[in-house]
Amino acid sequence: MYGIIATWRMALEGISEADEMLKKNGNAKDAIETAIRAVEDFEYYKSVGYGGLPNEEMEVELDAAFMDGDTLDIGCVGGIKDYANPVSIARKLSTYPVNNFLVGAGAEKFAHRHGFERKNMLTERAQIHYHNRVKETTVQTELKPYSGHDTVGMVCVDKEGHMTSATSTSGLFMKHPGRVGDSPVAGSGFYVDSKVGGASATGLGEDVMKGCVSYEIVRLMKEGMHPQQACEKAVKEFDLELRERRGKAGDMSLIAMNNKGEWGCATNIEGFSFAVATEILKPTVYLVKFDEIGKQYFEEASQEWMENYMATRTAPLIRK
Amino acid sequence: MYGIIATWRMALEGISEADEMLKKNGNAKDAIETAIRAVEDFEYYKSVGYGGLPNEEMEVELDAAFMDGDTLDIGCVGGIKDYANPVSIARKLSTYPVNNFLVGAGAEKFAHRHGFERKNMLTERAQIHYHNRVKETTVQTELKPYSGHDTVGMVCVDKEGHMTSATSTSGLFMKHPGRVGDSPVAGSGFYVDSKVGGASATGLGEDVMKGCVSYEIVRLMKEGMHPQQACEKAVKEFDLELRERRGKAGDMSLIAMNNKGEWGCATNIEGFSFAVATEILKPTVYLVKFDEIGKQYFEEASQEWMENYMATRTAPLIRK
Repeated sequence: MYGIIATWRMALEGISEADEMLKKNGNAKDAIETAIRAVEDFEYYKSVGYGGLPNEEMEVELDAAFMDGDTLDIGCVGGIKDYANPVSIARKLSTYPVNNFLVGAGAEKFAHRHGFERKNMLTERAQIHYHNRVKETTVQTELKPYSGHDTVGMVCVDKEGHMTSATSTSGLFMKHPGRVGDSPVAGSGFYVDSKVGGASATGLGEDVMKGCVSYEIVRLMKEGMHPQQACEKAVKEFDLELRERRGKAGDMSLIAMNNKGEWGCATNIEGFSFAVATEILKPTVYLVKFDEIGKQYFEEASQEWMENYMATRTAPLIRK
Repeated sequence: MYGIIATWRMALEGISEADEMLKKNGNAKDAIETAIRAVEDFEYYKSVGYGGLPNEEMEVELDAAFMDGDTLDIGCVGGIKDYANPVSIARKLSTYPVNNFLVGAGAEKFAHRHGFERKNMLTERAQIHYHNRVKETTVQTELKPYSGHDTVGMVCVDKEGHMTSATSTSGLFMKHPGRVGDSPVAGSGFYVDSKVGGASATGLGEDVMKGCVSYEIVRLMKEGMHPQQACEKAVKEFDLELRERRGKAGDMSLIAMNNKGEWGCATNIEGFSFAVATEILKPTVYLVKFDEIGKQYFEEASQEWMENYMATRTAPLIRK
């Protein structure tokens, strides 16, 4: 049973490509890299790759990771600028015995030496978003980070049972230069073990890191839980833990899939969506709701919702 | 019951200072920061702070982290150059709601803006080590990373039961520029929860990250295990897992303490030492041995061993 699951509607086109590859006996590494690259390349998604929103100095700094669930090999980049596909650099890094997590200028040097495509990742739309935000916040005491959390995170299993996980993001809008979130942090933004399953997160990275939530979900699946049960338990308990200690919990949405292609999702925010495809399910976008005790409910996105989504993303943007 | 435990003999002077502070009702944040700074400042320890060994371009790049076990606040720096005390920058970062993990030039910018002490961290001894290694490896196909793993990682509990964890390292000798290890990665290099306890790692960061080993130890303590039992179980099982999947396991040594001041340690290498002090134990260095099933045995370091240790560290170094 093959399958791939991803955070957010934006992953749909990517997982559809991956689904075709997996159907034709493609492997989980190529499939997940292809799926993430599709999101990175689409300029209208303003939180991943090209078109991603910049930091407070109007630089687009990207984080990404790639993990092989068979060997537990990990590759990560943090705060990398002006390379087209951070996930491919992360995959390359995962093939080395050491130096798997590179950040900043060092990551760029590695990418350059290995022939990865350079690209000015700051689009005109992202510049307009930046200028508008600066204008909006001139009356406030300081620039507030972007309130959304739109990392793309995925878990994939191929027909032979090999599993992978990968992430890619431009991180918090208006972040400090050099800020790294949970996306390249193993166990927080992603984790996968082909003997069990994998999980990946989107949300306020600073809070996800406090609980190693992706690792915890995989661990719960290892104890025998279904991915849905594992996601609900981990998200609910850690959300409560944060509220109890800190008075509030950051946004946190997790997706998971086990090595049988069974999947799950849990969130603590309104408006979360995810995309999933398996041998027995065509690529589908679900919208998530949850009740007071953290039980999650999924509803397939309507045609109207899908059209409205893309119209909103691609609408002309006016500089204020 | 207060206490502090740390990886390696090199932490002894630092934890002795911390022990005095804790005895006089000092808090776990100040005590652990003081202890780590002492290691960072001592130029003869070639793997932490001043005097740390450089990367392949002869730059000293430092990683550090600070975690508050009450709030789960985390602060981390990765690949920072030319600041005297990375752990203090990490502590400062832990006080913000976001932007807690900064890397490279962005981390340096933050440190500069907040008045942290700039310092050329490359010592003459480190230069000699670098030149000698380059010379040794001219007959080899490539520069091999430093085989040791000498991160300082600590866990502390104060009289009021507040807990902290912190790490500091110059990382792998001859690493690629921008390489980040497990030391600033939550759940891998460190983790602490004042309701339970904390753990910290030294070893091949790339492998420690594959198993979120510090988080796992804290989790096992949460299930009721003594720190010693938790360390042995986590290290033994993950070491086996890595050997089974990859044919080998990187160096991995973990220390832990719970909120009752009970402590433990486990390693998969020969020659590991650690330092510990509690309300009922004066600052002491233990040498670690282990048997075939991973059971660990501690022996207090002899006066002769201690003298030999410092003589070796401070011996004149000849440029080859």
